[in-house]
This record gives sequence, structure tokens and C-alpha cells, in this order.
Amino acid sequence: MRNLLVAQSGGPTSAINATLAGIVMYAQISEKVDRILGAVNGIEGVLEERFLDLGSRIRNAEELQYLCQTPAAALGSCRMKLSGEEQMEKIVGILKQNEISWFVYIGGNDSMDTVAQLSAYCVEKHIEGLSVMGAPKTIDNDLMGTDHCPGFGSAAKYIGITFAELERDCHVYDKKAVTIVEVMGRNAGWLTAASALSRVNGGNGPDLIYLCEAPLSTERFLQDIRRELGRKDAVLVAVSEGVKTPDGKYLSESVQANAEDGFGHAYIAGAARILEELVRKKIGCKARAIELNLMQRCAAHIRSSTDISESRMLGMKAAEAAVAGYSGKMSSIIRLSDEPYEVRYGLTEISRVANLEKKVPDDWMNAEKNDVNEKMMAYLRPLILGEGGVVYRNGIPAQMVLY
Amino acid sequence: MRNLLVAQSGGPTSAINATLAGIVMYAQISEKVDRILGAVNGIEGVLEERFLDLGSRIRNAEELQYLCQTPAAALGSCRMKLSGEEQMEKIVGILKQNEISWFVYIGGNDSMDTVAQLSAYCVEKHIEGLSVMGAPKTIDNDLMGTDHCPGFGSAAKYIGITFAELERDCHVYDKKAVTIVEVMGRNAGWLTAASALSRVNGGNGPDLIYLCEAPLSTERFLQDIRRELGRKDAVLVAVSEGVKTPDGKYLSESVQANAEDGFGHAYIAGAARILEELVRKKIGCKARAIELNLMQRCAAHIRSSTDISESRMLGMKAAEAAVAGYSGKMSSIIRLSDEPYEVRYGLTEISRVANLEKKVPDDWMNAEKNDVNEKMMAYLRPLILGEGGVVYRNGIPAQMVLY
Repeated sequence: MRNLLVAQSGGPTSAINATLAGIVMYAQISEKVDRILGAVNGIEGVLEERFLDLGSRIRNAEELQYLCQTPAAALGSCRMKLSGEEQMEKIVGILKQNEISWFVYIGGNDSMDTVAQLSAYCVEKHIEGLSVMGAPKTIDNDLMGTDHCPGFGSAAKYIGITFAELERDCHVYDKKAVTIVEVMGRNAGWLTAASALSRVNGGNGPDLIYLCEAPLSTERFLQDIRRELGRKDAVLVAVSEGVKTPDGKYLSESVQANAEDGFGHAYIAGAARILEELVRKKIGCKARAIELNLMQRCAAHIRSSTDISESRMLGMKAAEAAVAGYSGKMSSIIRLSDEPYEVRYGLTEISRVANLEKKVPDDWMNAEKNDVNEKMMAYLRPLILGEGGVVYRNGIPAQMVLY
Repeated sequence: MRNLLVAQSGGPTSAINATLAGIVMYAQISEKVDRILGAVNGIEGVLEERFLDLGSRIRNAEELQYLCQTPAAALGSCRMKLSGEEQMEKIVGILKQNEISWFVYIGGNDSMDTVAQLSAYCVEKHIEGLSVMGAPKTIDNDLMGTDHCPGFGSAAKYIGITFAELERDCHVYDKKAVTIVEVMGRNAGWLTAASALSRVNGGNGPDLIYLCEAPLSTERFLQDIRRELGRKDAVLVAVSEGVKTPDGKYLSESVQANAEDGFGHAYIAGAARILEELVRKKIGCKARAIELNLMQRCAAHIRSSTDISESRMLGMKAAEAAVAGYSGKMSSIIRLSDEPYEVRYGLTEISRVANLEKKVPDDWMNAEKNDVNEKMMAYLRPLILGEGGVVYRNGIPAQMVLY
């Protein structure tokens, strides 16, 4: 028997199951693969031998469709990082025992570290007949070695649409009001930048966009807000959760520090809530903080067809490469052209990906660092194209639950 | 000239423009209506004569479609309540001057008060040739005199789908965690009840549902959470923003009171955030608060086709009745059957609606008051049926901006 094992790791996305589906699809057409297994809860599940026979769970086109449109990791996830030779030895033993010749791990930078360690261990110990491959995934879009990441396009579409809808909502009253929307991203501002996609049909979108790559001082923020309020009633702001003050600290840390000074905040306030309070206190107009929270990573009903299709392809590519004997690489997207949008699929050395972060380039923002520019827009636009194709039952999208 | 005037009021919904579209459609087929005008910012805009010629703005099927799929009031809104004869006299004068024979006001309980006052004034003063009609609208679903309210079905669909997606997201880790989702509704729990729609395809949905109609004590909440955590890892909770403690105060007030006691909360915390903190302090496991915030009322991309269709019909019905000479009434939905779902459209005396609130009946909840029962489900299920039909451009739904 030669079996293919797949597992998922890191934070949920709307596209991670499409990558899983791509791997299952490849296993179903490959003559070399006998069984396709899934480990529950990532590498943790491998260590505990919690395996599912995916071939018996995903048996036809309808089930594949349901899997593809189900958000979050259908096999579960973990946040475990491998450490030490003992763990590695145990994993290899379990894989051998289950006649696994190929292991594909779907995840972000941390998960690619697992792929890097495990594949390096196999080389070092001359372990034959075991390929370890990575397939990318993260809504944060911060993986090196690939033009963009599966899951990002769907999150970007959700964010672009939500800002377009919020713009209409905020527009209805003729009172001065500032709405500040916090978008995920601790160290990379890609998702926050996607708020600008709300402008593709002529809308204003957010009036101000603050990415975590550019430091934000209280003074500059208030100056920007005052200027915008001078020319319109409803000001809409996008801000990265990880936006930092000029001294390099997270904006949210700055308030937690106040809490230690006896200010007594019982709750850890996010960036948007801190800025909301600032507007209320220093400007005195109506202010509202909105967090897109988990919805931005699991709103599969409004997934990008481009993202889902590419995510599936990256799963197929990783599985195909594993079976062809490659190890220690991640499947990746190479962009050939923005318009018409054209990509091809490749393989990236895992060392170019593991534990690294891709941030927004400085020259993809405007000079004032309160918006993005056309370089960013040209990059983003193709990633959200295509919608529909979700099968509903009783008014709610059908889902696939594997365990 | 005999003109029809329409205005919108109250909080935005995904369906209020479908009602506007229905009125425009009726004006376009009626031989009696010369021009269809829209007032910007509700009754405020009437007082300031800010009128748009809607006939020249919505000229064809494509523009009607874009109007229908644009969230929030395309004519803007206001929160103004009429007061005093002087205002009434001024309004009637403006309407007469603009040759308006029929005025349809789309809105919630407050807006229906405007319809009630204005129509009563016309009767009292023997003003001829002016009909004032209401068309319902509110995501809160708290209007009397109609089976349900336009905008509610789309919000309910968004909430049902979001809970189904959040359930998958929360399921991926095998650690104890409580996710508490706050849903709009200060005094009526209809929207929070809609979280149960996430179960229609066999999902668990929220493990606990707390409506604002049933008081919630800290003890009972913690007891419920502990029991749920005893049987599963990821506990998902739906709570109304207006949930009250047994002494009749809003849960959020109870913490603001603490703030006055020197506890020093700088932010007004919502119900979910207070419960999150309670779980963290008293149980000690991971907890997360999520607010569905404005998204639940403006997520037009996932509107319910049933809701949009009915909203359009209610606009047509109100316009038709106004032109037929009715005044001081609101168009309404009468449900004939749950399954197959069947409704007809009627007229309700405005006095049966204005300033009243329809709450969730006690016997539509379970005995423990931490969930809804089959009576609620039978009521909710038909309201979210149907999806799609939204026209996208560049990956984002097309919108109609009137001013």
C-alpha cells in the first residue's frame, strides 16, 4: 500500500477545504495512490494517529462540492510547532506504520516550518519513500514564495463587499460620524488594503486606510479625521488590528499599558476601539468601532471563485509533486499578468517560506501612508473575481462535516 | 399635476430600497401618477424641500435591479419625530406646493407615528386630495400589524448563515473555548432567534440562545456554559444586545454602573463583551465576543429573495392604496400558511402600529429560556428562502447611488 496523508493547520479560511479537495481529487486520479487519509487536528492528530479515510467520506462530485464550500478546516487545525528529534522520529514511525508515502500539510508560515523540519529530517536520516510537501493557506497573504495565498482572495472579497455595504449604511444620516473598521492582520496589512476594493465600481470606499506597516501617531490620525470631516459627514476608516504607534508598539498595547497605570480597563481594546474613543474625546462627534472578527475568514458564502479555483489547483499541484518524488517544497502561484489575469503553478523551496513574513511594500501605499495606490489595486483586483456556485439548502449553504 | 412622494426613515436594511423600487414601479404603471418624487433624509428632507425626480433617476430594468440590491436607504434617512401643528402645517403646505397627492413613508414604529400624525392632521383639518400611507421596514421585526417586517428576512438569513460559518470556524481546535455573538435587538429578540436558522441543514448552531425577552442572571449563564463545556470543546452562544438582568436593567448598563463605582471602564461594553469577560474570569477558558454590528443590517449580497420580493410588493401595495384614496394605513403581510409558505398583502390601521413593539412570545422559547422552539422555527424558516440574483461588477455587487 502506498497512501497519501493530508492535514490542515493554522487559522481557518474559506478556501482551505478547496485545497483539501484538490488533494483528494488528485489522489482519486493517480494510479500510484492507494488510499487518501486525513489527520484530524494537524500534526497533533498525526502524533495521535487520528486518521480518517477520506476516500470513503468524499465519494462523488456533490460531496466534493460541499467540501469546497465549507469554511474552516474540515480536518480541524492545531497551533503546534514541532520540536526535537524525538517528535520527528515518532511522526516518521507513525507514517511508515500507516504505509504513508506522501504527506501534504496545508497551512501558513508556522505549518511550513513543520514541513521544513520534517523534510530536512528525512534527508538527514536517509529516510526513503517519504515525501513531505506544503500547500499554502492564509487569509493574511503574508507567505513568501507565492504571488498570493489561498484564502486571501475570498477574505479580500468579503472585506471589499463589506466596505461597499458599510459605505451605503454610513451615508444615510446627515450628521457628522466616524466609522472605524478593524481588519485582521497583526504584521501585514494585505487584508486592510483589500478594503479599497470597495471602490472598483466607483464608490468612495474607506476615506482613510491605515496599514500596520506604517506607524500611526495620534496627531496624524486626528488631523486626517478632521480634514475628512471638513468635506463630508460620514467618514469611513479601515485600520489593521496590528497598527503601531511611532515608537513601534501595537496601538492596543499602548492602552493596555494605561491599564497597568491604574486606568483599569477590564477588556483588551482593539485598535478600532481605541481610535473610536479618541475621536469621541478629541473631536466630539459620533464614532463607532466595528471588528470584522472571524467573519472575514469564514464567510464562505461570498468566497471568490478565483480563490477557490486556485486553492484547489495548489492542492493538486502539491499532491502531484509529492507523488512525483518532490519533498521540502510548497506549491505556489506565479503571476504572469495582471490584466488579463494569468498565473501558473510552481514549487517553492520550503526554506524560502518557513517562518518568514511578506509585508506590504512601502511604495504600494500613498505618500501620506493613509491609503493604498494603483500598484496595490492592480495586484488585488483579479483576486476577487467570480462569485456564485454555492449550493444552498433551506436558505443556508450546504456544508460538509468530516468529524 | 398629481405627484407621488416617497421618503425613507429609521435604520438601514438590505430591503428598504426594494420597497422604494416597488413604489417607483407602481408609479410607472399608474395612469394617475404624473411624477414620482423622493425626499432626501426622510421627513427632514420634506421640511427642507430636498426632492429628487426619481422618474429620471430610475429609468429602466437595470437601474431598478441596482436599486433593489443596494443596501441602506438610497434616499437617506432621519430620526426626526414630528411635533406640533406648526410642523404639520408646513409639511402640508410644501406637499401642496409640489402638487403631491400621495405621500408614502417607509420606516419602522417611529416613522409610522409620523404617518399617524400627518394623516390624522389631514382628517382633522379637512385637507382634501392628500393621502399619507406607511410601508413597513425594520430588521428588528418588531412592528405590530404585519406578520413580519421587510428587511428582517435578509438580516435573518445573514445571521443564520454567519452562525453556520462560525460554528465551523469554532470547531477546528480541540481546546475549550466559548464564542459569544451579540445580535442587534434592544427590546425584541427576533434577530437573535434567527441564529437558530443555522441548524436547518443539520448543524448544531448556537448551543445557547439568550433573547432580550427573558432575563438572564450571571449564575444561570455560568451554569449553562459549564454544562455545555462539559460535553463539547467549542461552545457557541447567541445573545441579544438588549438582554436584561433579573432586575430589569440592560446587562450593559450593569457594567456602566460599575464604571461609576470607580471601576474605570472607558468604553461602553456590549452584552457579549461582558459575558466574555465573565467566562474568562469565572471559568477561565478562552472566550471571544463577536458583534455582528452594522453588517447584519446591510449585508445585501446575501439578502433573502423572499424578503426582497415581499418588500417590493409592500411598496407597491402602499402606493396602490394611496392612489386609491386610502390614508393613515400601513401595507402589511398576512401569513396564510407556513408550509407551503403563502402570504397575502393587506392594509393595517396605522394606530395599530405606531409606537408599539412586537416582542417574541414567551411560548416560542424553550422552558429554560436559553433557546427557541419549533413554533419559532416554523415562523422563521420560510423568511430566508431564496438567494442569488445579485448582479456583480468587478467582483463587487453593483449599487445605485441616488444622491
